[in-house]
Amino acid sequence: MIQRTTIEANGARFHLAETGAGRPLLLLHGWPEFWFTWEPVMTRLAHRFRLIAPDLRGFGDSDKPAGPFAPHNHADDLLALLNQLGIERIGVVGHDVGGAAMQPLARLAPDRFAGLFFFDFPYPGIGSRMGSPDSLIEIWYQSFNQMPMAPALVGASRETCKAYIGHFLRHWSWRKDAFDSVIEVFVDNFMKPGNLEGGFAHYKGSHAGRIAMMKGALPAFPPIDIPTCVRWAEHDAVLPFAWSDRLSETFSNLDFAQFPGVGHFPHREDPDRAAAEIGGFFERIGWCELTARNSSEPPPPSPSGPKRFHSA
Amino acid sequence: MIQRTTIEANGARFHLAETGAGRPLLLLHGWPEFWFTWEPVMTRLAHRFRLIAPDLRGFGDSDKPAGPFAPHNHADDLLALLNQLGIERIGVVGHDVGGAAMQPLARLAPDRFAGLFFFDFPYPGIGSRMGSPDSLIEIWYQSFNQMPMAPALVGASRETCKAYIGHFLRHWSWRKDAFDSVIEVFVDNFMKPGNLEGGFAHYKGSHAGRIAMMKGALPAFPPIDIPTCVRWAEHDAVLPFAWSDRLSETFSNLDFAQFPGVGHFPHREDPDRAAAEIGGFFERIGWCELTARNSSEPPPPSPSGPKRFHSA
Repeated sequence: MIQRTTIEANGARFHLAETGAGRPLLLLHGWPEFWFTWEPVMTRLAHRFRLIAPDLRGFGDSDKPAGPFAPHNHADDLLALLNQLGIERIGVVGHDVGGAAMQPLARLAPDRFAGLFFFDFPYPGIGSRMGSPDSLIEIWYQSFNQMPMAPALVGASRETCKAYIGHFLRHWSWRKDAFDSVIEVFVDNFMKPGNLEGGFAHYKGSHAGRIAMMKGALPAFPPIDIPTCVRWAEHDAVLPFAWSDRLSETFSNLDFAQFPGVGHFPHREDPDRAAAEIGGFFERIGWCELTARNSSEPPPPSPSGPKRFHSA
Repeated sequence: MIQRTTIEANGARFHLAETGAGRPLLLLHGWPEFWFTWEPVMTRLAHRFRLIAPDLRGFGDSDKPAGPFAPHNHADDLLALLNQLGIERIGVVGHDVGGAAMQPLARLAPDRFAGLFFFDFPYPGIGSRMGSPDSLIEIWYQSFNQMPMAPALVGASRETCKAYIGHFLRHWSWRKDAFDSVIEVFVDNFMKPGNLEGGFAHYKGSHAGRIAMMKGALPAFPPIDIPTCVRWAEHDAVLPFAWSDRLSETFSNLDFAQFPGVGHFPHREDPDRAAAEIGGFFERIGWCELTARNSSEPPPPSPSGPKRFHSA
């Protein structure tokens, strides 16, 4: 029931997966992922929302023009995509690269977004901690992915691609088997011509900003006022929970809590709870048509566990 | 005229290349190298010195027992090797990994070493600079080389091995063609079973010490008093010249100067001058039998250019 379409926007063709009915939600994937990473969440929320999951520029079946692609390039793409779709107002859900793109996107056109929902993602308050000596063993890929030799090394064969992509899907997960049943689908995706390069183009594009963040040299932006919900994983190896402590500097209207028992990929490690957290947030802010709920389906599980709210 | 032998010491077999006559010099290679990296220097100094270039544990044709191999493990090997060779006193020349091993080696048996000669190498005074944000794009390999997937990725084929090893030999060189004529020999070497893993075992073994250095948490050792000469390359991308400014904290008897016009591999980028610098130092400290010089050969070129001497 997931429909696939291709739409031209901002000079490139974007592949979208779409399902469900109700208020629209835009779902933005990370690296090394593509739209399909949201599939378990999409099937769980389709009775309540219209769900639109694009492949970001460079990823999946979207175009792969010459990079680099910085987060603000993805933001330009996504706003153009909403215009092409004729969508005036939408909720946005993202993590990792998707969450990085959501920040310039929210600043580009704040009136277009009903709410922002994030799983673990880079934001300015992480600061120098990302480059601390103990983090180096985790963040080397941000540099390796920029090397001219990287696509040839990783893409030398299906086996090398699986070793590399599979490393991150497993290492960054807390539930180690989260991707086992779909690993070949992910390898299929990254073996498509240009897809390794397309993902690496994000690392080239985000390099200067990331280094500026580590140096404390990012320009100061005013906080984002759009209603925001962040559920940060308890056990993320690459974006540790401790780094979520400065979110209220970037988001003035923040509903924050830990997502227990998962690593970097809550949407794949615990899709029941991930869907419930997303649905619950957009319901709380009134971005949900209750009439769209199909009463023949069981209600979605409620989020539980400790919850903290940051004040801005 | 270079002789190859294998000698058992410290529980492993070590492959040595040996040539020349005169006072003995031990030549210690770096990564991604093996004894053969010294060949141009060996041919230039053979009329003045007995030159012994081992493959470090894990490298070349030496044994590759299970790692990790920290610098002090290499130091134990080298002292055992000198004992097996019946060499009471020797001069030591090294760079990179070899230079890292020379520091614990010098502290292990200071009376056994007439002098120490270094090209660019890690030492405690580099400190937190190695992990600074601007350095991350250079030092990622120190982490990647520790990943369980690294040998399979790099060693997937001769092409991937050449792409990876060749990247460092070219990127770290200032004279970009320095390894062009021998690149296949280096690839042959690293395609031998276990040689990628053997080199990577050094990065596993040196990880804790490197992180402690970046944190400023290394134990304080008294300086090394053995006559020491350091010629640090003008254009080293991975160990920049600026990082040579604290050598006198580690070496109390230091003859220091910049090596102009080269990058990380002076011995391959400018072997004439590299050999002259090495020979000149050991001559100055009296570790040279002038009678061993073959008067039918032209004298070696003299070192020239600016020279600075640090006081301890």
